[in-house]
Amino acid sequence: MSNTASPVAPAANVKVPNDAREAIARLQMEYAHVIDNDELERWPQLFVEKGFYQIIPRADYDQGRPIGVWFCDNRAMLEDRVSSMREVNVYEPHVYRHVIGPTEILEAKDGVYRAQTSYIVVRTMHDGEMHLFSTGRYVDEIVMEGNAARFRRRVVVTDSWRYDTLIVIPI
Amino acid sequence: MSNTASPVAPAANVKVPNDAREAIARLQMEYAHVIDNDELERWPQLFVEKGFYQIIPRADYDQGRPIGVWFCDNRAMLEDRVSSMREVNVYEPHVYRHVIGPTEILEAKDGVYRAQTSYIVVRTMHDGEMHLFSTGRYVDEIVMEGNAARFRRRVVVTDSWRYDTLIVIPI
Amino acid sequence: MSNTASPVAPAANVKVPNDAREAIARLQMEYAHVIDNDELERWPQLFVEKGFYQIIPRADYDQGRPIGVWFCDNRAMLEDRVSSMREVNVYEPHVYRHVIGPTEILEAKDGVYRAQTSYIVVRTMHDGEMHLFSTGRYVDEIVMEGNAARFRRRVVVTDSWRYDTLIVIPI
Repeated sequence: MSNTASPVAPAANVKVPNDAREAIARLQMEYAHVIDNDELERWPQLFVEKGFYQIIPRADYDQGRPIGVWFCDNRAMLEDRVSSMREVNVYEPHVYRHVIGPTEILEAKDGVYRAQTSYIVVRTMHDGEMHLFSTGRYVDEIVMEGNAARFRRRVVVTDSWRYDTLIVIPI
Repeated sequence: MSNTASPVAPAANVKVPNDAREAIARLQMEYAHVIDNDELERWPQLFVEKGFYQIIPRADYDQGRPIGVWFCDNRAMLEDRVSSMREVNVYEPHVYRHVIGPTEILEAKDGVYRAQTSYIVVRTMHDGEMHLFSTGRYVDEIVMEGNAARFRRRVVVTDSWRYDTLIVIPI
Repeated sequence: MSNTASPVAPAANVKVPNDAREAIARLQMEYAHVIDNDELERWPQLFVEKGFYQIIPRADYDQGRPIGVWFCDNRAMLEDRVSSMREVNVYEPHVYRHVIGPTEILEAKDGVYRAQTSYIVVRTMHDGEMHLFSTGRYVDEIVMEGNAARFRRRVVVTDSWRYDTLIVIPI
């Protein structure tokens, strides 16, 4: 699947049932809150089993270059990431704060919702220092599993190509 | 009441009537706008008469230490705060801008809604300088009074423990 | 029309049909996304033909001074702005990221919705450097054109009076 197609299309005609719309909004909130509140063990559960997760700079995304900073294509890989984070724990302690904008649903087709959501993440270090860590947008494919919405694909498209040498906590 | 219990729980099953959900969303918006637009006299009215308001660093909150930077447990105290702010007025003029994320309603029980909402506050000084002032989350207990939602308890859990020496305007 | 009237009023009683509320939310999202995703050609289409667009510092807005940094009072002017941006292209490349809060609808009268929405814009330069570019609020008059909401008037009230010498991309 190419990244080159624009993820934005006129959304006026996208019909989304109310319960799916609410489930998608809840998924977006939970995603941010489980990371920010240090409940990372719940984070992989927000993806389907074959869920895809990638962090990629905007320039690479726009030009269809598949090179990203993080890349996982199933839930077990996400769980591994969380485990090593918990075990190693050598990095300087820090927390994130996501503030996300509203979710624009761009397409609803064959049970898959394509959506985009802007975010700002502020990182606070142990000494209390705060700084802008990342801004960008989530480009998602979301499906319903029972009453819950889950990510089939979440691509984190970051506005900047510069990263801290080590992104420990997912964005 | 202890702060140690995690404020996050799977929210999938929380049923909230539409009018309560809308009233809660409106409360969250009004809270941010009355502060940012310098209509602080309306701020205490967003609390019930015995409303509780606290600003507390995340580390203290997580460990159940009741020490906060601000503490008020009724509306009259909030009104006093606003009055002294207006009278004394010695501080360097500045304004806030809150951007809040969506509100996650975690529990609805006996007419009390427990909710959390992430925020970023940017402060702009008189000389035009902007900086990140605070990030964190609101942990709320909200009740309905007629058609309006009101805070029974708003705890501002700040990600950083460092504050400006004087927090004049509420967060 | 004077700017001096407070744009904030108790909003509890504003009745907005669900489809208009959704269309307004979609308009706010599209506005941010077309700018941030470099689809500026779609930006003027979010205004009615005689649409008004202004960027004005908060102090000037509050005191009713009509002096703004940008001023357009029809869609053709907005289109001209976009064209020259595309043609000249001498500025250092940069992108914006808007994160907007929820939209508070303050009044619904004769088919015109008055609303306000807080925003934070982070600018990322070509070298990857990020900084807070602008914070403030949108003060809008919105009308329905068929199923779509459009800006009749969007005033960008910036918290700071300091700007980069050249605001190239709209806020």
